[in-house]
Amino acid sequence: MKPEFQLIAAFARRIRRRGSRAPGVVVDVGDDGAVLRASAREDLVATTDAMVEGRHFERRWLTGRELGWRLAAVNLSDLAAMGAAPRFALVSLAIPPGVPERYIEDIERGVVDHLARYGARVVGGNVSSIDGPLVVDLTLLGACARGRAWRRRARPGDAIVVAGVLGAAAAGAVLLRGRKKTGPLVRAYVKPTPRLDVVRALTRSGGAAPSPVHGAIDVSDGLSSDVIHVCEASRVGCEIDATRLPISPAVRAFCRERGLEAVEWALHAGEDYALVLSVPARALRRVSRAIERAGAPASVVGRFTKHRGVYHVIEARGRARTFRARGWDHLQRGR
Amino acid sequence: MKPEFQLIAAFARRIRRRGSRAPGVVVDVGDDGAVLRASAREDLVATTDAMVEGRHFERRWLTGRELGWRLAAVNLSDLAAMGAAPRFALVSLAIPPGVPERYIEDIERGVVDHLARYGARVVGGNVSSIDGPLVVDLTLLGACARGRAWRRRARPGDAIVVAGVLGAAAAGAVLLRGRKKTGPLVRAYVKPTPRLDVVRALTRSGGAAPSPVHGAIDVSDGLSSDVIHVCEASRVGCEIDATRLPISPAVRAFCRERGLEAVEWALHAGEDYALVLSVPARALRRVSRAIERAGAPASVVGRFTKHRGVYHVIEARGRARTFRARGWDHLQRGR
Repeated sequence: MKPEFQLIAAFARRIRRRGSRAPGVVVDVGDDGAVLRASAREDLVATTDAMVEGRHFERRWLTGRELGWRLAAVNLSDLAAMGAAPRFALVSLAIPPGVPERYIEDIERGVVDHLARYGARVVGGNVSSIDGPLVVDLTLLGACARGRAWRRRARPGDAIVVAGVLGAAAAGAVLLRGRKKTGPLVRAYVKPTPRLDVVRALTRSGGAAPSPVHGAIDVSDGLSSDVIHVCEASRVGCEIDATRLPISPAVRAFCRERGLEAVEWALHAGEDYALVLSVPARALRRVSRAIERAGAPASVVGRFTKHRGVYHVIEARGRARTFRARGWDHLQRGR
Repeated sequence: MKPEFQLIAAFARRIRRRGSRAPGVVVDVGDDGAVLRASAREDLVATTDAMVEGRHFERRWLTGRELGWRLAAVNLSDLAAMGAAPRFALVSLAIPPGVPERYIEDIERGVVDHLARYGARVVGGNVSSIDGPLVVDLTLLGACARGRAWRRRARPGDAIVVAGVLGAAAAGAVLLRGRKKTGPLVRAYVKPTPRLDVVRALTRSGGAAPSPVHGAIDVSDGLSSDVIHVCEASRVGCEIDATRLPISPAVRAFCRERGLEAVEWALHAGEDYALVLSVPARALRRVSRAIERAGAPASVVGRFTKHRGVYHVIEARGRARTFRARGWDHLQRGR
């Protein structure tokens, strides 16, 4: 079967082709969330993301609470990428025989608690049984000031700013596979931080002031894939400065031990849910400060260029080389 | 494992217990949909329902288009039960290896086409792979006039009105299991009609006039289970008139051939997605006419009583006997 992101892209294309442009749909399939006109003041932002046992997680890796927490995280991160505040969620579970009821309760607790941290709550749900792996699915609704949702867009000349770190969660997943249970990398996988505090800091005016960023995406597939998504949507190119990727000492050590190139790892590994922003020069200082005040590392990792479809990494020695989308899917199969 | 409806009830209880009463939540977990305050004029209604291969359907029973159509139907019916008009949907698919891409495309087509019939559209989605059965999940958002959503509520003395028929879809599922592919019963299972035209007819004033019904639910688990849900939520009882259940000649023939009691079948079989309404005497004539004008059979099948927890069926000879919730889940396991 095709990798997931190709299936999703095909799905999005088919929906766009078939669906008439409906009234009330501001942003359609293909961004991190849909934007729907809800009122004179606010737009509604909706996203859905599932986790499938054996594919996105193993039950022995995660407690029920951790699984619920992570399910909330991946959806909260999609809303962060839209510059929206989470409000309401619907949970759908397909539960195989033999999963202890306690584990299910803990999933629900993890979801509810993580959402509560950002003022959102579960308002509906569905439970099915399944003769197969555990499937947990969340749909999350949020809100942003009318017309102010962040798109997957960038402008040439803008800085590429990463809020968060790269490569840690994917390293944690590898360690979990190897039955390691603790440490900062495992924690980065088990409890990723959706960057909603950053969104809050950057939209503090409640949308009265123009947004200081031109667009955003969250790193779920990997920086390379996700930045290319933005570039494709905006018909621009990009240059990534290899020396400025936010790679923690723990990730460097992980890569060294395994003979992996840390820059490659940080470029292509997913699941960190860092936020990638397109920031004009005039707002760069303000945005970086706001990110750091919100508790996330801020890194200017490169810039968007007008060279459509040209994606370069500039290495330590100043040499430029082309990179392609080679996200998490690829790394997982390569392991 | 517990049957699904017990799991869902436990889930709902836990969410209610843990979740603070959030601003903007008008109707919480435990109804056919959540009602969320969206604007000064309208409320948002949200519901989610999944279908799991091997549990809710078999792939050899349904074409991709039929599966998608049915997935839309079960969710559209939840919105009908809330008196809401569908608007936006998010689809989540977990796809096992070996399912032809064409089948997946057809699912999407079925969903999109059925939603389009009621003016709604897909605005987002998610695709995962799964080593297990096909799982299709939909979250549907709709709208109703502010404060006018239909609840799972009834008033003593109100007539119990069914819009649609009973027992046909469940009979169709049995026939499909026996490899029959055609006929009105199979069609009733494969292409159930969500009763949104009835909703439209009954809310024509756009919510300016008070609603002519006191409450509603759709028959997904079976009339017995679903009416009892309404009674429990309203602390009332009910009397069902066995002679007035909308049982088609095809269902009677199906039951006769299998030595089943048609009344029992109609009382406990689910999946027809008929609408059950609590209608005051003064509005009964108007409501019945509106239902029929909207193309559905209207049947007054009994009344709600003030005898909390007392659920009676009045049989042809006038004898009353107690009934319990014995929905679709039960019938399926009993087969």
